[in-house]
Amino acid sequence: MTIGIVGAGQLGRMMALAGYPLGLDFLFLDKDAQTPGGQVAPLLAGALADPALLGQLAQRSDVLTFDWENIPVEALENLSGKTRIAPPLRALAAAQDRLSEKRTFELLGIPTTKYAAVDSRESLELAVASIGLPGVLKTRRMGYDGKGQFVLRQPADLDRAWNELGKSPLLYENLVPFDAEVSVIAVRGTDGELAFYPLNLNVHRDGILRLTRAPHGNAALTRQAQRAARKLLTHFQYVGVLTIEFFVKRGRLIANEMAPRVHNSGHWTIEGAETSQFENHVRAIAGLPLGSTRARGHSAMINLVGEMPTRGPLLAEPGLHWHDYGKTARPGRKLGHITICENAAKSRNQRAFKLLSRVDRATWLALR
Amino acid sequence: MTIGIVGAGQLGRMMALAGYPLGLDFLFLDKDAQTPGGQVAPLLAGALADPALLGQLAQRSDVLTFDWENIPVEALENLSGKTRIAPPLRALAAAQDRLSEKRTFELLGIPTTKYAAVDSRESLELAVASIGLPGVLKTRRMGYDGKGQFVLRQPADLDRAWNELGKSPLLYENLVPFDAEVSVIAVRGTDGELAFYPLNLNVHRDGILRLTRAPHGNAALTRQAQRAARKLLTHFQYVGVLTIEFFVKRGRLIANEMAPRVHNSGHWTIEGAETSQFENHVRAIAGLPLGSTRARGHSAMINLVGEMPTRGPLLAEPGLHWHDYGKTARPGRKLGHITICENAAKSRNQRAFKLLSRVDRATWLALR
Repeated sequence: MTIGIVGAGQLGRMMALAGYPLGLDFLFLDKDAQTPGGQVAPLLAGALADPALLGQLAQRSDVLTFDWENIPVEALENLSGKTRIAPPLRALAAAQDRLSEKRTFELLGIPTTKYAAVDSRESLELAVASIGLPGVLKTRRMGYDGKGQFVLRQPADLDRAWNELGKSPLLYENLVPFDAEVSVIAVRGTDGELAFYPLNLNVHRDGILRLTRAPHGNAALTRQAQRAARKLLTHFQYVGVLTIEFFVKRGRLIANEMAPRVHNSGHWTIEGAETSQFENHVRAIAGLPLGSTRARGHSAMINLVGEMPTRGPLLAEPGLHWHDYGKTARPGRKLGHITICENAAKSRNQRAFKLLSRVDRATWLALR
Repeated sequence: MTIGIVGAGQLGRMMALAGYPLGLDFLFLDKDAQTPGGQVAPLLAGALADPALLGQLAQRSDVLTFDWENIPVEALENLSGKTRIAPPLRALAAAQDRLSEKRTFELLGIPTTKYAAVDSRESLELAVASIGLPGVLKTRRMGYDGKGQFVLRQPADLDRAWNELGKSPLLYENLVPFDAEVSVIAVRGTDGELAFYPLNLNVHRDGILRLTRAPHGNAALTRQAQRAARKLLTHFQYVGVLTIEFFVKRGRLIANEMAPRVHNSGHWTIEGAETSQFENHVRAIAGLPLGSTRARGHSAMINLVGEMPTRGPLLAEPGLHWHDYGKTARPGRKLGHITICENAAKSRNQRAFKLLSRVDRATWLALR
């Protein structure tokens, strides 16, 4: 069985590495063969929306998936007669557009931020008047790693925000002064089987995830997160891995966004869970039973952003797991990650902060 | 850094899958592109001893290794000026020839079987007279998975054994009525750093490994095994993973053979150890620090030989890890393996036997 993957970034690469032992084959489509995925599996090089290439990918694959949510849904819709696509395009479409995403949360009774669609200078003023300050103006589409966002703290910020983002359809939402950020990774099999990973506790800096610790052992939060994930998975008749990111505010979860795919905050599952998110995604879309999502110890994952630290001294750390995505260094780019698993949350935290001080001093200073 | 691997079987495949996250690239040389390794990394197709292909492999690689010990040492020796080769060819040469292997054990004071070289009908008679019956006549070269062996139990067996194997240089050794079979997997880094995995308890049937359980927690046996491994690693100024298989007889280890490579009895380390044997082999030959060899729980590995069982019901087993090498089914051929990790040795054993009854009934019946 061959799995076709639109997008050959690190997520696709880790899917292939997890899927090979299951006896699955992989084929990527991406602009460039020098992508993380193209280094470990065959790749069709060209535009992600190229109908001829997508047709070829569909023809050579038994099921089609994607490792990035900002791909044109229409291009994939044309294939839906020719191949099976998972996760479902309805979920992809909803996740691509922050307005559809918020409406889906509302529809399903999943608590989320206050928001308003913004498509003119006037509607921005109305939105700010109704929702208040501070707030965040976001492009409805193509936002990731903090891109396409502007925080408004005072009335004077409206002009600057509008000048920067006004050319795209926008969404304004209140800025949640959160106590913490968490995410849940859930998976639904072809036959409707559901599984949930333990909650992830996430730290972002400049809009980019820097540190995830899991399991984040709060039973009440875990229940809320799983309830939300269950609603979304069932609503979309979803197949594959789905991620929801939440703000935690006074013991309540507020859904921030969802991703119809494996997620950076789940990278710890490679070593820290019985079955990784990548394996469970490919199991689900290949129609196989899901694997156990049980945590093996207490894990921390630190992203390696912008430049890779020197490998040798870190590999000498007992039990440190190194993940290099094979990408060219560039400021703000996710190039790899490291994971540690400890027997207790306390020693995990101590070790994670020590490692953070070595590989991401700015985040370490911010957390100190 | 690119690692060139001579031989693209399942061992090479698992090396590549373990090495990709370290940021390493791989290039295989094998007869056929439809090999397990060729499905996950680029491959040069042709004879393993082809000087032109070996030259190309050496030129495109920073270090050269092998996933099979029965490759012509002379062909590799011609490359030794052009590239770094690890493990060292002296160790490969010693392991290829059962006589050199026994002499190395003797030289280093590692207890082994009684043996004699056999190169004529007369020398076979002399060997049997001196060592006694029962014994095993083995080809000195190209033996694996029980191939090229003949058990002699009575004088009448000499003729049949000689007729079957007499065309090759041979070795006769006493048949050890062992209590158990164990193996140790050890690794030595480029800078001389040593690490040892816990002992493996192995069950063979028809000369093929069927079941490994680890850690086999006997401190005295572990000490003996590590002492032997340390001697060999130091003797050869070894770099990479080395495996020694032993018979256990009344609490003493008797070395049976060594393999200058990762080993089937170490497949459990993928999920069952902090760092897998495959990752540690590529770390060692790439000049990187070794990873922790600590066991994570109690593991059992069952080989899938001859035909793959139906995947679905087994993948539904919680925490069962599936490894399909992507090979064509053939009687006696190792096609894949499964691994489970449990919190205690007792539950691990119970589960392993239950699984064995499903995927390898003959071995299960033999062990019952």
